[in-house]
Amino acid sequence: MAKREEFVRRRLELNEKVLRRATLGIKRFWNLDEQSYHAGALDAKTKELLGLASSLVLRCDDCITYHLVQACEKGASGAEIMETLQVGLVVGGSIVIPHMRRAVELLEQLEEQADQEKS
Amino acid sequence: MAKREEFVRRRLELNEKVLRRATLGIKRFWNLDEQSYHAGALDAKTKELLGLASSLVLRCDDCITYHLVQACEKGASGAEIMETLQVGLVVGGSIVIPHMRRAVELLEQLEEQADQEKS
Amino acid sequence: MAKREEFVRRRLELNEKVLRRATLGIKRFWNLDEQSYHAGALDAKTKELLGLASSLVLRCDDCITYHLVQACEKGASGAEIMETLQVGLVVGGSIVIPHMRRAVELLEQLEEQADQEKS
Amino acid sequence: MAKREEFVRRRLELNEKVLRRATLGIKRFWNLDEQSYHAGALDAKTKELLGLASSLVLRCDDCITYHLVQACEKGASGAEIMETLQVGLVVGGSIVIPHMRRAVELLEQLEEQADQEKS
Amino acid sequence: MAKREEFVRRRLELNEKVLRRATLGIKRFWNLDEQSYHAGALDAKTKELLGLASSLVLRCDDCITYHLVQACEKGASGAEIMETLQVGLVVGGSIVIPHMRRAVELLEQLEEQADQEKS
Amino acid sequence: MAKREEFVRRRLELNEKVLRRATLGIKRFWNLDEQSYHAGALDAKTKELLGLASSLVLRCDDCITYHLVQACEKGASGAEIMETLQVGLVVGGSIVIPHMRRAVELLEQLEEQADQEKS
Repeated sequence: MAKREEFVRRRLELNEKVLRRATLGIKRFWNLDEQSYHAGALDAKTKELLGLASSLVLRCDDCITYHLVQACEKGASGAEIMETLQVGLVVGGSIVIPHMRRAVELLEQLEEQADQEKS
Repeated sequence: MAKREEFVRRRLELNEKVLRRATLGIKRFWNLDEQSYHAGALDAKTKELLGLASSLVLRCDDCITYHLVQACEKGASGAEIMETLQVGLVVGGSIVIPHMRRAVELLEQLEEQADQEKS
Repeated sequence: MAKREEFVRRRLELNEKVLRRATLGIKRFWNLDEQSYHAGALDAKTKELLGLASSLVLRCDDCITYHLVQACEKGASGAEIMETLQVGLVVGGSIVIPHMRRAVELLEQLEEQADQEKS
Repeated sequence: MAKREEFVRRRLELNEKVLRRATLGIKRFWNLDEQSYHAGALDAKTKELLGLASSLVLRCDDCITYHLVQACEKGASGAEIMETLQVGLVVGGSIVIPHMRRAVELLEQLEEQADQEKS
Repeated sequence: MAKREEFVRRRLELNEKVLRRATLGIKRFWNLDEQSYHAGALDAKTKELLGLASSLVLRCDDCITYHLVQACEKGASGAEIMETLQVGLVVGGSIVIPHMRRAVELLEQLEEQADQEKS
Repeated sequence: MAKREEFVRRRLELNEKVLRRATLGIKRFWNLDEQSYHAGALDAKTKELLGLASSLVLRCDDCITYHLVQACEKGASGAEIMETLQVGLVVGGSIVIPHMRRAVELLEQLEEQADQEKS
């Protein structure tokens, strides 16, 4: 799945650029961000779905891509993703639809990839 | 807990005013909104937490109040609420802090009320 | 209608405070803002409805109040207001509902006042 | 006008992907969204201008493109579009300028296309 | 200046409630937030003005109040505050005006208080 | 630095298109926008940093690019830019990270270009 791999590669490349120049405060934010999705009272899958819904209503494609991939890796089913997107759509309105379209396209790619890996 | 009851009363009163004048489309939105939090692939508690995180990052006090009350009624623990608020805080930044403060105050009131009802 | 008159009085009082200290640029913005709703290719009522829909999706109660009053003064009917609110609701999602509730309450007050003035 | 046709084609392709997997709630939202721009107390052109102003202040290029095309098809003149954009610019501030630039470029393309079709 | 003192008192009271229940991540965010306005390559006054402009364009009254008070305490003049507000107004548009009105009212109160303390 | 030059060229081209069709109000906004960053009580560098922080929290890549270039031309150091980005990150949350990544990449390009021009 070229598109997703390109996203991951580019994200890592830019993260390195940021962290090379980052203030101590920026580094602390990076750690805090990463730690916020670790399992605790809520499991990791649920936290990624929270991140996904929040990213959809705030309309950030990169953030949606990231949390959608993470949620699937943490075991979210296609139906769980679609219900999460519905909550985001109803809360955020039709203005989120362009982002939701791209999210569903990515979900389809992730499922095709998962099917290929199984077979 | 006067504050919460006043919120519920006022919300109902205004909902009636809206629905008395609503177009068919507005009524449909109202139904769709309500239906989006019913249990499906995700349980109702998780959906309310999605609504809570989305409301926090979009910074709507009335929506936070509504989903926080609902999440507690659907069985969310204080620790689960706080982790949901942390995700919203990290995604949405310090600009959500004033809303988070009021959310924690409400959580405290809900727990005090639950304690009183038990004893 | 005490509430609306208090809104108008307070708005004027604060506007005076701003303009007493305003930079030249702030004064120019004030003029530009006011001028943008004058009739041109579009009539003044339509422009106020544009301002109302924009204020609803951006969720600013003061701005909604202002444009709702203006739209009614420029001849918008209750049905035209409700259809404008529906567009804003669908574009902006359930997060606009608390503002929409207050908008409909104001609309009701404006119509009661108009009825009293006629009789 | 290749760009606009590519936009329409891609939008349809992704819409199909969404609707293939959509929950009942998502399908209902799609219907409600479409129905909200039908003529009622307000004519269809005015509703598209409301959608355009809302999309500009919320800064969604896909939504701006969609409503701009629709508004022109419903008979909006270039001058009416520009006044709608002015309201959105003043309400939303300089942060909407990049989207406004692309909107004006699209408007120019639509008018060139209309001229060619006439001749 | 009763209003400002009430704001400070209420803010402290709610901060204590939050920190009593906060996850480790929330506490870390609180520290990071506070540390981000310490003098570094930029002096503390400039950082508070950055916080003020950001709070204005995001339209958060509590955040505006906080950074306006801090900026004045770090030595920002009335003219510097007004130019910061102008940048926020032009970037954020007329939707920020209600918040700007309240900001100017607070600025006036802060200056009156400073005059009284001097005399 | 091809990317930046392409950005400048495209921006000018579209600005011309807008101004060719602009209403008087749009032209006035353009002037007001430009004038808001001139030195006054605050120097021009500080005003560009205010524009940069505001653009980051509102998440507009074109606006970030513009103010980052301007801030560097007005003498902002890399460390000053990074501290400005930290304030924007803490205020706006992780949702601004994708924009911050691209901002740091641009900062690196600007510094490389400055190094080449010196040697």
